[in-house]
Amino acid sequence: MENGGGKPVAAGRWHFGVNSALTKISDISIRPVLNMVMANIPEDGLRPVPLGHGDPSVFPCFRTTSVAEDAIVDAVRSAKFNCYASTVGILPARRALAEYLSRDLPYKLSPDDIFLTGGCTQAIEILLSALVRPGANILLPRPGFPFYEARAAFCGLEARHFDLVPEKGWEIDLEAVKALADENTVAMVVINPGNPCGNVFTYQHLAEVAETAKGLGIAVIADEVYDHLVFGSNPFVPMGIFGTTVPVFTVGSISKRWVVPGWRLGWIATNDPTGVFRETKVVDNITTLLNITTDPATFIQGAIPHILQNTKDDFFKKTIDTLKKTADICWDKLKEIDCVTCPHKPEGSMFVMVKLDLSQLEDINDDIDFCSKLAKEESVVILPGGAVGLKNWLRVTFAVDPSSLEEGLDRLKSFCQRHANKIK
Amino acid sequence: MENGGGKPVAAGRWHFGVNSALTKISDISIRPVLNMVMANIPEDGLRPVPLGHGDPSVFPCFRTTSVAEDAIVDAVRSAKFNCYASTVGILPARRALAEYLSRDLPYKLSPDDIFLTGGCTQAIEILLSALVRPGANILLPRPGFPFYEARAAFCGLEARHFDLVPEKGWEIDLEAVKALADENTVAMVVINPGNPCGNVFTYQHLAEVAETAKGLGIAVIADEVYDHLVFGSNPFVPMGIFGTTVPVFTVGSISKRWVVPGWRLGWIATNDPTGVFRETKVVDNITTLLNITTDPATFIQGAIPHILQNTKDDFFKKTIDTLKKTADICWDKLKEIDCVTCPHKPEGSMFVMVKLDLSQLEDINDDIDFCSKLAKEESVVILPGGAVGLKNWLRVTFAVDPSSLEEGLDRLKSFCQRHANKIK
Repeated sequence: MENGGGKPVAAGRWHFGVNSALTKISDISIRPVLNMVMANIPEDGLRPVPLGHGDPSVFPCFRTTSVAEDAIVDAVRSAKFNCYASTVGILPARRALAEYLSRDLPYKLSPDDIFLTGGCTQAIEILLSALVRPGANILLPRPGFPFYEARAAFCGLEARHFDLVPEKGWEIDLEAVKALADENTVAMVVINPGNPCGNVFTYQHLAEVAETAKGLGIAVIADEVYDHLVFGSNPFVPMGIFGTTVPVFTVGSISKRWVVPGWRLGWIATNDPTGVFRETKVVDNITTLLNITTDPATFIQGAIPHILQNTKDDFFKKTIDTLKKTADICWDKLKEIDCVTCPHKPEGSMFVMVKLDLSQLEDINDDIDFCSKLAKEESVVILPGGAVGLKNWLRVTFAVDPSSLEEGLDRLKSFCQRHANKIK
Repeated sequence: MENGGGKPVAAGRWHFGVNSALTKISDISIRPVLNMVMANIPEDGLRPVPLGHGDPSVFPCFRTTSVAEDAIVDAVRSAKFNCYASTVGILPARRALAEYLSRDLPYKLSPDDIFLTGGCTQAIEILLSALVRPGANILLPRPGFPFYEARAAFCGLEARHFDLVPEKGWEIDLEAVKALADENTVAMVVINPGNPCGNVFTYQHLAEVAETAKGLGIAVIADEVYDHLVFGSNPFVPMGIFGTTVPVFTVGSISKRWVVPGWRLGWIATNDPTGVFRETKVVDNITTLLNITTDPATFIQGAIPHILQNTKDDFFKKTIDTLKKTADICWDKLKEIDCVTCPHKPEGSMFVMVKLDLSQLEDINDDIDFCSKLAKEESVVILPGGAVGLKNWLRVTFAVDPSSLEEGLDRLKSFCQRHANKIK
């Protein structure tokens, strides 16, 4: 408040205040951790290099296609989409998405399988709340995407963690999944292409995931927000392919493939040819929740058919080529740095996980200390691995323009050399 | 699912299913009730007349200003706003909103008082969750906006209801507020201009609200989503004027004044010159919640400064003039219908509450039956009053183009005459 004027009022007279349940989850999220790291960047320092979060939209080489921009402009100019949308999203958008997602499936989705959401984050928010039951738990990957942990804590789902195994290309430890699950387990989350590991699961591994989930009687939440962003030897395989084995909720968005995370258009798709989600009324839960939450902007929904149908392969290929190039730069440059090891070359998404060897560093306590000092001294932002479940690792994004990435990684190398343990 | 193929799976094998907490709130919302009413409209019937919800954007006479459309187009074309926004919203938008809202206040809001949300609905969602404490309750108006009841039930806030008094121009029964409140009461909700009553509170009444809330130690949530949409003798008085008496959360959006409900851009403003909300950490709760929920589209945030600063008074005046005209039509036509009474001429927002006299009707059981049969026979959609807390009343919106409104009310009159009790 500027020019407040009034005298301070004792907090004690008021009946509202701290919500301790919220305080507990206030740190389980990437944004606060990144904000804490970025607060160390000196105002008069080097040009900041953002290797902390998956948003390359600010770089000209990652600018979205004019097809998408034109579609938005046309939708706004039409004045047909200033109105409220229907609860689950407008039909033309859901129909276009059903067709788009069905291209990669052995069966056809209908528009009724599609629920539009405010980005993939709202899709996750809605799904976790829809799956809540008294005493229920959900199985989450470690490392993972902490938004799941935060929302699970918020809605009262117990989070249990299975490991992704770095030595096996970050595959899921399915024995751990079986050991963790009990009769109160409602679902497991599979993020593919992988955030934060940059791996891409094989068809065979996903088939095993499906059989495991089926055996446990749990749903699969397939987080495919990085769908199609693959550039290694494994193709992208949508989990929905296994929908006849186990019912799958796929969550996704245009944020990553079209490089427009700020447009906030995502979806839940029920990949469920046997109708389990309708029969068990989970779909009713989703609709109820969509009735009491906000919607993606209607004119963005209105632009979706045009965006999905008219985006040229050239655009997708350019993005993939750039990510392949920057993933290679990242892999090569990280190999030159003594105190970090990278167990698996990234082949999808925008991230790679790197293990810190603190014994090689002189005055660094942990990953947070590392990232804070790196930001302070080199204006390079990297996410401490603890934020995604692996203490003393780092999550590095390579979805930045190649020259910025090279500069950022060179500064990272200088930093590591400067802080290297002199007595070996 | 089209072409599903797989055989049905017994629901019993799966661990997920009905969420009984959600089932309880599935009907506490306007959308499901309106959907139920609209399902009665015959496909080959008369042209539907939507007097059920507050969205006039489909009518040419309510089209938004080109200033707003241009601002969106420019923001998209700039490619500066494809990125994620910051948690609380981008600074230029918050700065512009602080200036805009401060025009009507005796002190100045700072950008840190503004939190951008996905429409006013998400503002309500965030605020209620931020105020939750064990055993807490909140005071809501009856009739009101059922989204509050639904969100309160969802987040575990007990809802207690005070009456708006039709004989007093729908003023708040402040004695009832005092009687309802206890040490677990965190806030009271004031909707002004009124939804669903179409009333506009006087300065004097709002001053009494402020003193009452201060005495009870509770916050005021001022729902001003219909701000400035007034056309009677009372001017619009923002509750924030009384921020030095009692801390006020104002929730609002561009949805109504700019007639763009589908754009999903709203806000929470802390009208709190004495800093109570920061001191009591409620602001921290809000930030935590904004970290784990979706945001309004970044380019819509980017358009906000231009929209707020450059919209001409002509546009606002045209909307008000049209609403004044349609409110007059509504008032005059409703007076001609025997079985309904309208206790207060609408002077703001887009709605009026009308009391049904069932004793004058032959074969109508209640408000839902009335609205269902009206939709079936006349394709006119009106919201049953029970949906907003007053059983056997009706909420009629007059925010439609004048000729549609006249036609809809004429059909309503025919319907009432046809169903009138023949034996008087």
